[in-house]
Amino acid sequence: MQNRTLEELREIFSESLAKEAEKIGTTNPTGLYEPIKYTLDAGGKRLRPVLVLLTADMFSDNISHAIPAATAIEIFHNFTLLHDDVMDNATLRRGNLTVHEKYSENTAILSGDAMSILAYRYLGESPAILLPELLSLFTKTALEVCEGQQYDMEFEEQNNTSVDDYMKMIRLKTAVLIACSLKMGAIIANASDNDANLLYEFGINIGLAFQLQDDWLDVYGDPKVFGKKIGGDIRSNKKTFLLLKSLELSNEQNRQELLKWITSSNADNDIKVAEVTRIFNDTGVDRKAKELMLEYHKKAINCLNKLEIPESKKEALLNIADKVINRIS
Amino acid sequence: MQNRTLEELREIFSESLAKEAEKIGTTNPTGLYEPIKYTLDAGGKRLRPVLVLLTADMFSDNISHAIPAATAIEIFHNFTLLHDDVMDNATLRRGNLTVHEKYSENTAILSGDAMSILAYRYLGESPAILLPELLSLFTKTALEVCEGQQYDMEFEEQNNTSVDDYMKMIRLKTAVLIACSLKMGAIIANASDNDANLLYEFGINIGLAFQLQDDWLDVYGDPKVFGKKIGGDIRSNKKTFLLLKSLELSNEQNRQELLKWITSSNADNDIKVAEVTRIFNDTGVDRKAKELMLEYHKKAINCLNKLEIPESKKEALLNIADKVINRIS
Repeated sequence: MQNRTLEELREIFSESLAKEAEKIGTTNPTGLYEPIKYTLDAGGKRLRPVLVLLTADMFSDNISHAIPAATAIEIFHNFTLLHDDVMDNATLRRGNLTVHEKYSENTAILSGDAMSILAYRYLGESPAILLPELLSLFTKTALEVCEGQQYDMEFEEQNNTSVDDYMKMIRLKTAVLIACSLKMGAIIANASDNDANLLYEFGINIGLAFQLQDDWLDVYGDPKVFGKKIGGDIRSNKKTFLLLKSLELSNEQNRQELLKWITSSNADNDIKVAEVTRIFNDTGVDRKAKELMLEYHKKAINCLNKLEIPESKKEALLNIADKVINRIS
Repeated sequence: MQNRTLEELREIFSESLAKEAEKIGTTNPTGLYEPIKYTLDAGGKRLRPVLVLLTADMFSDNISHAIPAATAIEIFHNFTLLHDDVMDNATLRRGNLTVHEKYSENTAILSGDAMSILAYRYLGESPAILLPELLSLFTKTALEVCEGQQYDMEFEEQNNTSVDDYMKMIRLKTAVLIACSLKMGAIIANASDNDANLLYEFGINIGLAFQLQDDWLDVYGDPKVFGKKIGGDIRSNKKTFLLLKSLELSNEQNRQELLKWITSSNADNDIKVAEVTRIFNDTGVDRKAKELMLEYHKKAINCLNKLEIPESKKEALLNIADKVINRIS
């Protein structure tokens, strides 16, 4: 019986995670474990664990079996952010100092390593009979996330990244963990293989749409509600869908100008954002991004349509799919 | 039937690992996976995976079920060395450049993360029915290894580390993974819980003796066979059993002199090694180390005596126990 709203699921998860974080943070040596509590306490949308609980709730009356896997996914996700922040030299995460800034780089490495092990420890508390399947899905996904991060770092050093390369990268770095979350909840609630796989596919498509909307909002978001400064990706020469598609579609003059902007290190940032945005508009990549997003949204909805469960149970995921492409922050 | 010698088991494992390393190293993105092959190809004694196979061989005719777990343990061990080398700023490992020196620090972090995930992927190929128990033992051990590394790093910054602290640290950093290896092979070969736990205890004691011998050899080893320069730990102010015990047993004059040496950064290293060794001799910590080693050796043998298997099957482990305390390099 799917009884619970997203907010209720988030509430259930957050309460459970807070308790676990408290236990972890007071374990000795606290020099190792306290930074993990710091990371987990920083919040975030808890999107992935809520998705685990949501699909578990779609197929079962009892979501408690899915809480360890939801915890594993959230801890793993935060572990990847922690190590990504070291690799990217990031100073802030969710408004707080990153772990390597607040503590030290060695702490960020080792506490991150311990976090990744904790993820497996929680996963291991899932129903024993399902463990081989869950562990296989989780390790496959975790490796893909590392592959995505590797491609992302390599792209920053290259000047010949294609839009296809980029889509492959965001599938690995972002979409597979969302897909894995949805499938895990379904597996734990004993959904059919077919339904579990459809939910995975739904997750891939929604994950890709989510990232495209992220790229789009960075340039075309409403400064009043976006939360971050508009044009951050442009300022940091990030290779987003908009930039790569624009390079692909530009005439020679715009192309040269784009290349000039993304290789210049001492440009006036406001002019840079304005000029790059003008070229994006010229090449129509804002519409291209929206079109592609709608395409993934449609594919995602198709997956939901094929699920062999009552339509009423699909509503929460339909809402999520709509929110992903309509979100403004 | 225990048919195989240590050398045969090492041969079986090395051949299997080389094949896996080849597959891993040619996976895309190779920027992520090739450094893992580089790490695994560098060799090492393969002590831990051989122990997995050895105990499996003691309780079962078929050791093939234990190969994935042996692979998991060896990959995990190499992952910890890789990240430890980043944290310690080490330049060389087994005569080769460390991964962060040969590639980059980001590569060392991310390829290390992928290695730790690979360890779980291999573990997941163990017999499904045993997976909950194996995963629980493995994650517990892996966290303890991180705790050991954390204490080790904290001790380097402190001046009040006790011998007890040190023994606790080496139990976590070194002994538990050896114990886990022995227990895993036993679990996979369906040994009784009692025998599996005795092998774990054997491993803890042998692991502690192993580390004490390591500390002893660094100062009292024969330069002709030791392989490394004598006194390396003294030169780098490492807090070993010898140093901490010596600080505990010294008279005030020796104690002050020891403290002076381990806090001086511009001392003549040959004089430093000679003077610190003289104080070690004065306080008799070379004998104390040997006595403690023999104590752990005795405890280890007691564990073997209690194993409910034919005496003939215990021989390989008895030999290992003797080798640990008699090794000269």
